[in-house]
Amino acid sequence: MTHTRPTSPGLDAILGRQFPVLDHGFIRVVDYMGNDAAIEEAARVSYADGTRKVSETRDLLRYLMRHRHTSPFEMCSITIDVKLPIFVDRQWMRHRTAKHANMNEESARYSEVREEFYIPRAEDLAMQSTANKQGRGEPLSDGDAARVLEILQWDSHRNHMDYQKMTGLYGLSRELARINLPLGTYTTKRWKIDLHNLFHFLGLRAEHHAQWEIRQYANLMHDFAEIWCPLATEAWRDYAFNAVSLSAQAVAVMKRRLAGEVVTQADSGMGKREWGEFVGEFGG
Amino acid sequence: MTHTRPTSPGLDAILGRQFPVLDHGFIRVVDYMGNDAAIEEAARVSYADGTRKVSETRDLLRYLMRHRHTSPFEMCSITIDVKLPIFVDRQWMRHRTAKHANMNEESARYSEVREEFYIPRAEDLAMQSTANKQGRGEPLSDGDAARVLEILQWDSHRNHMDYQKMTGLYGLSRELARINLPLGTYTTKRWKIDLHNLFHFLGLRAEHHAQWEIRQYANLMHDFAEIWCPLATEAWRDYAFNAVSLSAQAVAVMKRRLAGEVVTQADSGMGKREWGEFVGEFGG
Amino acid sequence: MTHTRPTSPGLDAILGRQFPVLDHGFIRVVDYMGNDAAIEEAARVSYADGTRKVSETRDLLRYLMRHRHTSPFEMCSITIDVKLPIFVDRQWMRHRTAKHANMNEESARYSEVREEFYIPRAEDLAMQSTANKQGRGEPLSDGDAARVLEILQWDSHRNHMDYQKMTGLYGLSRELARINLPLGTYTTKRWKIDLHNLFHFLGLRAEHHAQWEIRQYANLMHDFAEIWCPLATEAWRDYAFNAVSLSAQAVAVMKRRLAGEVVTQADSGMGKREWGEFVGEFGG
Amino acid sequence: MTHTRPTSPGLDAILGRQFPVLDHGFIRVVDYMGNDAAIEEAARVSYADGTRKVSETRDLLRYLMRHRHTSPFEMCSITIDVKLPIFVDRQWMRHRTAKHANMNEESARYSEVREEFYIPRAEDLAMQSTANKQGRGEPLSDGDAARVLEILQWDSHRNHMDYQKMTGLYGLSRELARINLPLGTYTTKRWKIDLHNLFHFLGLRAEHHAQWEIRQYANLMHDFAEIWCPLATEAWRDYAFNAVSLSAQAVAVMKRRLAGEVVTQADSGMGKREWGEFVGEFGG
Repeated sequence: MTHTRPTSPGLDAILGRQFPVLDHGFIRVVDYMGNDAAIEEAARVSYADGTRKVSETRDLLRYLMRHRHTSPFEMCSITIDVKLPIFVDRQWMRHRTAKHANMNEESARYSEVREEFYIPRAEDLAMQSTANKQGRGEPLSDGDAARVLEILQWDSHRNHMDYQKMTGLYGLSRELARINLPLGTYTTKRWKIDLHNLFHFLGLRAEHHAQWEIRQYANLMHDFAEIWCPLATEAWRDYAFNAVSLSAQAVAVMKRRLAGEVVTQADSGMGKREWGEFVGEFGG
Repeated sequence: MTHTRPTSPGLDAILGRQFPVLDHGFIRVVDYMGNDAAIEEAARVSYADGTRKVSETRDLLRYLMRHRHTSPFEMCSITIDVKLPIFVDRQWMRHRTAKHANMNEESARYSEVREEFYIPRAEDLAMQSTANKQGRGEPLSDGDAARVLEILQWDSHRNHMDYQKMTGLYGLSRELARINLPLGTYTTKRWKIDLHNLFHFLGLRAEHHAQWEIRQYANLMHDFAEIWCPLATEAWRDYAFNAVSLSAQAVAVMKRRLAGEVVTQADSGMGKREWGEFVGEFGG
Repeated sequence: MTHTRPTSPGLDAILGRQFPVLDHGFIRVVDYMGNDAAIEEAARVSYADGTRKVSETRDLLRYLMRHRHTSPFEMCSITIDVKLPIFVDRQWMRHRTAKHANMNEESARYSEVREEFYIPRAEDLAMQSTANKQGRGEPLSDGDAARVLEILQWDSHRNHMDYQKMTGLYGLSRELARINLPLGTYTTKRWKIDLHNLFHFLGLRAEHHAQWEIRQYANLMHDFAEIWCPLATEAWRDYAFNAVSLSAQAVAVMKRRLAGEVVTQADSGMGKREWGEFVGEFGG
Repeated sequence: MTHTRPTSPGLDAILGRQFPVLDHGFIRVVDYMGNDAAIEEAARVSYADGTRKVSETRDLLRYLMRHRHTSPFEMCSITIDVKLPIFVDRQWMRHRTAKHANMNEESARYSEVREEFYIPRAEDLAMQSTANKQGRGEPLSDGDAARVLEILQWDSHRNHMDYQKMTGLYGLSRELARINLPLGTYTTKRWKIDLHNLFHFLGLRAEHHAQWEIRQYANLMHDFAEIWCPLATEAWRDYAFNAVSLSAQAVAVMKRRLAGEVVTQADSGMGKREWGEFVGEFGG
């Protein structure tokens, strides 16, 4: 019997193809390891002959996800090349994600930085949210959007011209000249992550509180996950991403409501903000 | 242009084949990701157009290893199934290795444990080392070896009979009955690790201070690394495994000796034990 | 102004005191870092002047836990000495916990292993569960329990006598002789973990599916967490440990039920097992 | 007997004090855990009664460092607040360091970014190195330095004015407006790391290939390590930072030279670059 590596024909078909994100960015799948069946196989190592083979792959993956048996999902890995603005990269690297991923990034000490900056489309320019201290709210008026774009374009362009002047005319070292470049400057990195931690990344970055720009990358990564491990990705959506966690207090309230009782915030045991979210999801 | 995953024909040829280790153990390569060329490619992401393409793959990998640029080696991963005695597994899981690997192990709560124990060959039975508090020294006499083997075989066999009696006759739960099984009992796990951390594991476990039994596993893993990424593995041997680290004090002594001076431990700045190791390597 | 380290008077009062677990085990808190206020302070670094100081510590910690902002909880760490049977240690080291903790364990290569084995109390001996492949069910009859205890005691005792005979009489190296010792043998380790990952550990090991023996250790660790960071621990219980996650399907069912509809498993979109758990929690 | 936490009087004396770095940055030690004696104590857990207590703390720590027994050093942790330019932070977060540290950073989505940018001193402005693709070489002439400073100051100032205009006049959300800010903008984060990984960080960032700016931070962190765990830090300098690793080839050459032989690059088995480094250290 000849063994071969588990494959994903869907992902094989798009290997090395650049998928555009934002104005100059992209993601390109470079390599991967494992598939839905490999997750199942890893889980069966744990259960050995303790599992009846009756349960189908889909059922097993859903069971694993539901019970947070995460290690079999770590057996799959994916490597991408991603071109992204530096402010997006800084969000990407924050939190736990960096701990479980591997990374090589273009170095602005070695190489001249190209004149490529993220400039939002006019329709993506939005005002500071009044409800959410970290988010954006209403779109800018057409006039204001035009003026903002002009600022962003001119400042980026001038900063890069000055970068080139400093390195070219004065011979300033690249590692110093780059401090003049704005946070919208694009960089490129190779990034490898296992499926469990990719799901964790998607949970943080495909979510509606995440900044719109990084969500564009996360959404595309979600599509790759869907193509690569469709059953695992579906299970993740159902039991994690689109799941709702009820606190101990919310569970108690829910039981009272199912029993016909009308519960108010005052006697819910929940704070105002949590109550608001609860009612937002399940009605008052 | 069609892209395909980087491959290792050598590793492809042995995928899924069990290679025996000790009396009942084995390692089987299940999957892998990357190869020597993928390491080079990951490194070139960092240097971008800052590297001339003249340097050959081998030279670049040696440069990376020499300068401890470890992240490109993390882009390769390998998954194995390994069957090993529990006392070997406990060494395997200790130290940093566990932090960068992924693991699924057979559960003795789910499944009946088979009667498979590690029993050393007579010629591998050795006395406690007198020089090394953690090692073994002279072989046992034939007679003593025979008596030790008899003890190990009988105790293992009886403990497993009693395990079966407790689960079978008295219905004791597996999770409790197993506490009677000896540390030589075999278990099976699936293990995934990246190449950089595999090298770190080999550095700890293929080394002559490691227990002989785990070295048999590490040596086989080294052979797999050699087949998979021959240039990276050669670089690791030359610049890490077979390299010698000279302390600040040893560097100073070496310079004096190269200048013709005779240096003694007393004026070397080294302790006795370090001096002994230094002289053991470079002569007195 | 003089700064001092954040302290926990409650934990200071029990530092170094051994709390017994099982028949020969213990946990002893050796050192710690941070407290509830330190978690709040770390969170306020992120929000800077973006947070009004009105919200109280308790409210902020609950908010962080509810929204899975885990990094401030990682700023607290605790170090313990723990003496535990090897089969418990193997569960302890499995899964993600090992990745975020630091560990030093007694070595059976260096030192003679003492004759200390876990022998369950008669009332803790239980039959294999018929419902749960990994659990235990009904207690053993008094007669069967007595016979099982006799087996465990005799096998442990004889295996240790043979261990001593092999090292003493035949001079066999400790690293080999120990393979004869059963999985109930006690070992001691020093373990350091941050509060976020301690909560993750408790979620896995204080939970009712975990083996009873490791739960005794986890319960004590929970008590230490309660003494050390009472607000964070309360938040973890309410929003994680005692929370219930509703899948996308369960959310839809819940909304229909709240609207007065009677939903059956057949039209719930849930599998039988998930439905059973749902009905077990919220009624049929 | 009352137990108390291990302390470092030296570090206690400077807790919470801001030590300036660069023009607007600082490091402030917020908390710590462990000291030299705690490292020794952790190591003694492994050796149990297998170690004679004769060896002094200093000897033991040097032994551990020499033999890369890293886990006892992981038992110490330190937490700092650090204010640093974003381009320095990006170097800080790269490589393995991020995997073993915990972090909370000021968010430019929540809070207005202050007008604080790194502007090098005139004497720190240097030309691109001709020898080293990633480094800097000769200082700029006074005139060129003045012109570069003018550019950096004006661009930073204007970019921040435009940032304020975009958020103030047009109401643009902070998360978008910040993309106009340069990489020299200061940010603040709280960072916690264990001593072993702090040493690894220092090995990468206090080293002469590291960019001058991050070295200022690394040097200060080294001073804190020296105050906190002087014996461990001395051992790290002698056996790691100031140690020289000889490759298998270099070891062979060294032995030939010690035996009186003259060795040339051609018959050294080393490449030109490695030979150059070898001769640079030990003479030709």
